[in-house]
Formats: sequence, C-alpha cells, structure tokens
Amino acid sequence: MALLLIDPERETAVRDSFARQGLMEHLGARLVLVAPGEAIVRLPWSERVTQQQGGFHGGAIGALADIAGGYAAMTTVEAGMEVTSVEFKINFLAAFSGGLLEARGRVLRAGKRLIVTTAEVLHYDDEGKESACAVMQQTIAPVPKKY
Amino acid sequence: MALLLIDPERETAVRDSFARQGLMEHLGARLVLVAPGEAIVRLPWSERVTQQQGGFHGGAIGALADIAGGYAAMTTVEAGMEVTSVEFKINFLAAFSGGLLEARGRVLRAGKRLIVTTAEVLHYDDEGKESACAVMQQTIAPVPKKY
Amino acid sequence: MALLLIDPERETAVRDSFARQGLMEHLGARLVLVAPGEAIVRLPWSERVTQQQGGFHGGAIGALADIAGGYAAMTTVEAGMEVTSVEFKINFLAAFSGGLLEARGRVLRAGKRLIVTTAEVLHYDDEGKESACAVMQQTIAPVPKKY
Amino acid sequence: MALLLIDPERETAVRDSFARQGLMEHLGARLVLVAPGEAIVRLPWSERVTQQQGGFHGGAIGALADIAGGYAAMTTVEAGMEVTSVEFKINFLAAFSGGLLEARGRVLRAGKRLIVTTAEVLHYDDEGKESACAVMQQTIAPVPKKY
Repeated sequence: MALLLIDPERETAVRDSFARQGLMEHLGARLVLVAPGEAIVRLPWSERVTQQQGGFHGGAIGALADIAGGYAAMTTVEAGMEVTSVEFKINFLAAFSGGLLEARGRVLRAGKRLIVTTAEVLHYDDEGKESACAVMQQTIAPVPKKY
Repeated sequence: MALLLIDPERETAVRDSFARQGLMEHLGARLVLVAPGEAIVRLPWSERVTQQQGGFHGGAIGALADIAGGYAAMTTVEAGMEVTSVEFKINFLAAFSGGLLEARGRVLRAGKRLIVTTAEVLHYDDEGKESACAVMQQTIAPVPKKY
Repeated sequence: MALLLIDPERETAVRDSFARQGLMEHLGARLVLVAPGEAIVRLPWSERVTQQQGGFHGGAIGALADIAGGYAAMTTVEAGMEVTSVEFKINFLAAFSGGLLEARGRVLRAGKRLIVTTAEVLHYDDEGKESACAVMQQTIAPVPKKY
Repeated sequence: MALLLIDPERETAVRDSFARQGLMEHLGARLVLVAPGEAIVRLPWSERVTQQQGGFHGGAIGALADIAGGYAAMTTVEAGMEVTSVEFKINFLAAFSGGLLEARGRVLRAGKRLIVTTAEVLHYDDEGKESACAVMQQTIAPVPKKY
C-alpha cells in the first residue's frame, strides 16, 4: 500500500508546479491524481481545444499526454528539482468531440539523468463510455527548479 | 517560380481550416505562410502558453509543430479533403520565454494515403535573434472534410 | 478462449512471411508466438547483434521490436495481404549483453488502412532473470503481398 | 574549412568504435565519412538485410540511421567517452531493393548530457539514381568507454 502513496511534500511540489502552467489553466486541464510514478490529468471538451472538424485537437491531446508523463516523472525526482521534456512521440487512435479526455502517465524507468515514461489517453463521452484515444512515449530530464 | 505559388482555392481552404481551430485561436497562433508543401505558423509568448518555469510549454510547441506539418500536408491533398495527424514526434532543443516561436512545416513525401512531414521550430527574441527550439517528424492522413 | 487462438491459415501466412526475412534469419531471431493481435520474437545474444561495448545493438533491438509489432499487425489483415512499417519509435531502458531478448508486439488499433502497435522488449539473462530493455510505438500499413 | 575537418584522434576513436560493432560488420555496413557533427554510413543490399518482400528491411534501415546519428554525435564528445542511443524514431518514405542505402547523420544540438541528431537515409540504385528512403530523429547520451 505504501508504494502507492506519495510523500505529501512531493505531491505538493507536483501540484504547485502544475498550477503554475498557464497552458494547462487556459485549456482547462485538471491534475486529478498524483502517486509514485503516476499522474492522471483530465481535460473537458471546449472550444478552446478543438481542431477544424470540431474534435479534440491533436496538439491538445499531445500537450495533455506530455503533462501526464512529465508529472508522473516529477514524482520520482529529488526535492527541489523540476522536470523538462526531452522529447515525446504520440500515436492517435481515434478522434472524439465532446466529453472529456483522461491522460494516464506512468514511469517506465526512473534514472538519475533521464526518466522514461508512457501515457495512454482515454476518451469518456457524456454517458461515461470509455474509448482509447492516443498513446505516448516520452523522455524527461530532471532540471533545477527556477522559481 | 510557379512551383512556389499555391493555387488560390487551396490556400483559401487551408486558411479557412486553420481559422476553425479553437486551439490555435485560443493560444494566439497565426498562419503566416501557405505554399505548396509548406506552411509557417507563428506563436507569440503569452501567459496562455507557459509551463511551470515561465517558458513556452512543450505541449504548445508540439501543437504548433503539429499544425505547421499538418497544413503543409493539406496543401497537397485534393479539393474537398481535410487532413488528420496519425502521429508525431518532437525533440526539444532548448527552452525559451518571451519573443515568439515560428514552426516551419514541410512535406517530405506526399502519398495518396499518407503524407510524411517535418517541422523545425525556431525562437525569435524581442531583438529578432533566431535560435533552434525543436524538430518534429509526423505522419498525416487525408480525410473527408466534415464541415 | 477462441479469441486467443489464431486462424491456422493466418498463422501459416505470418510464419511463412517471417521465414522469408533475410535479416531475421541472419541475426538469429525466432518467431515464438503468433496469436490474434500478438506476436513474440526472441533473439539470442551473439557477435552478430553487438554494438561497440559488447551489448545488444540498439539497431538490433529496434529491428526486433519492429518485427514483433509488424507481425502482431499482420495477424489482423485480410488473407493475401502483407504489412509494411510506416514508422516506429523506440526508447531504450537499459543495456544488456548475453542471454536473450524477447519482443512482445501487440495491436492497439487495427484499422483498415493503418494499424497501431506497441512492443515491449525484455531481456532474460542465462539464469532466466527478466529485465525491461525497451519500449516501442509503431504504425503499420497493410500492403498487397508480392510473392 | 577547419570546421569541416575533424581532429584525427577523434576520427580514429569513432572508426575504432564502429569497427567493434558486430551488427554493422555482419550486415555489411561501411562508415564512409566522419566530420565534426556528421557521419555517413553505407549499406549495400544483400540477403542479410531483406524483409519478406525482398526489399531492405525496416529494421536494417533503422539500425543504419541509428548508427549514422550515433557516430555523428560521437564526433562531439570528449576524449575517452563513448555514446549510447536514448531513443530514436524513423519514418519510412519508400521501399527499395538492390543498390545501396546511405544514412547521413547530423548533430542538431550537442549538449553535455544529451545530443540531438537527425539522419536522412537515401537509396542509390545500380545506375546511381538517388531517392529518399527514410528520416530519423534521435537522442544520444555520452557514456564512459568500457573497452
């Protein structure tokens, strides 16, 4: 059980970091879970996240997955450290409009210098039906916190 | 010369498509060039596109590159067709705050079923100094226009 | 149970295809499992698959993952069709020498035109100890069989 | 001009490293150019590098691109250091059999901890006609030399 509960100070650091992201605030994303090596972020559909056909924008899906992987990684770094994305890669599985997206980030390998993560992005429609939306792989680097 | 000038109807289709993207409008991005196999999009720095350390958010950089590649691809599809991202992958080269980002999308191979593109993302500071920010590779598929 | 058993003709098509791959034969890879949406390939360590430090070569690991994903995809295409890789992306988690690698390919989405797969690559040492080696995401396209 | 000429000791280190790769020797690849931030590797078609339809195997193309990017990166590291692939991503543009492949690796950013590279893979047929085959993006890390 202890393995699934995060140190409260680390959780606070992660949540404070997320709260500083102008992009996430403006898109309307919410950090709903922070656990060791795990983070879940949700994004409701709105006009702010659409592409030209009315669906969730691939760029918004990518940003959501990037964040879920990044904060999963941030649960594993030392106190006083932040994280930055080295790279990520996303495959889109299906297009959706309405409802909300949930990105589940997970650490695959937490190294001192590099952290490898994956994220799956799921869509939930207004009746709660779940569908696969996208999958991501990512490399994260710990960096000094500058704020 | 003709090779670098796009059919006006296709340019209009691309610009109309871009104008329908809630995400791009919300982030403040501008489509500044549309040419055969090429598109350039610019994004000024604002609180809407930041990460936790005050720099441009990797998710916003990814969205910008995705769009530049996607609209470069859309210049090559048939009348009445739209495009969708199959996947993309981005490597970040350096972090920046202030100034603006420019993503230059370019088609590497325009197939009937799949289009492969690349984009480079450059940063310009307020004095106009150019720096490399990110590089992207992407697969795009033509899809029927639904609007 | 039926869901986990493949049509014998499709399995034969997949195994015949694998047997035609000069690269896999010369590296010493073996296709050990073919099931609906799944394929497992194993590669023992040898001088033929090393990099400069004596470990399994990243290029060989990438080839193994590419094959596992590709043949997982081939289990889902119509009779008489083959598959080709559109793109793949691999993250390396740790380096290994000796023992053998196992790449487990799995289909995430089987479309008519595109198939999205993932593969995990595991290392087994001579005592059978399992370690994570790499993860891959891939896009596959069905293509006409030419042989 | 000096910028395009590599320090002879570094070139020797790169060439010695390449010569130690069992995979490259076995596939028949040749390192044909080493310059600051650049490496070119060639691979003639043979039965050792084919896929099931008789063309160059995507896994072999990936390995070639990985190597070209990796040795381009190795030209930038300190004496006594080696390199390892953190990740790479490759898009295939067209399939080829016969002739030879040439992978041109190039460093985009040479950091202390991470090096970002790109490679383009070209095909030359027996008459010397050049065609685009694949493009790759890659992250490389400097690591201690262990031999």
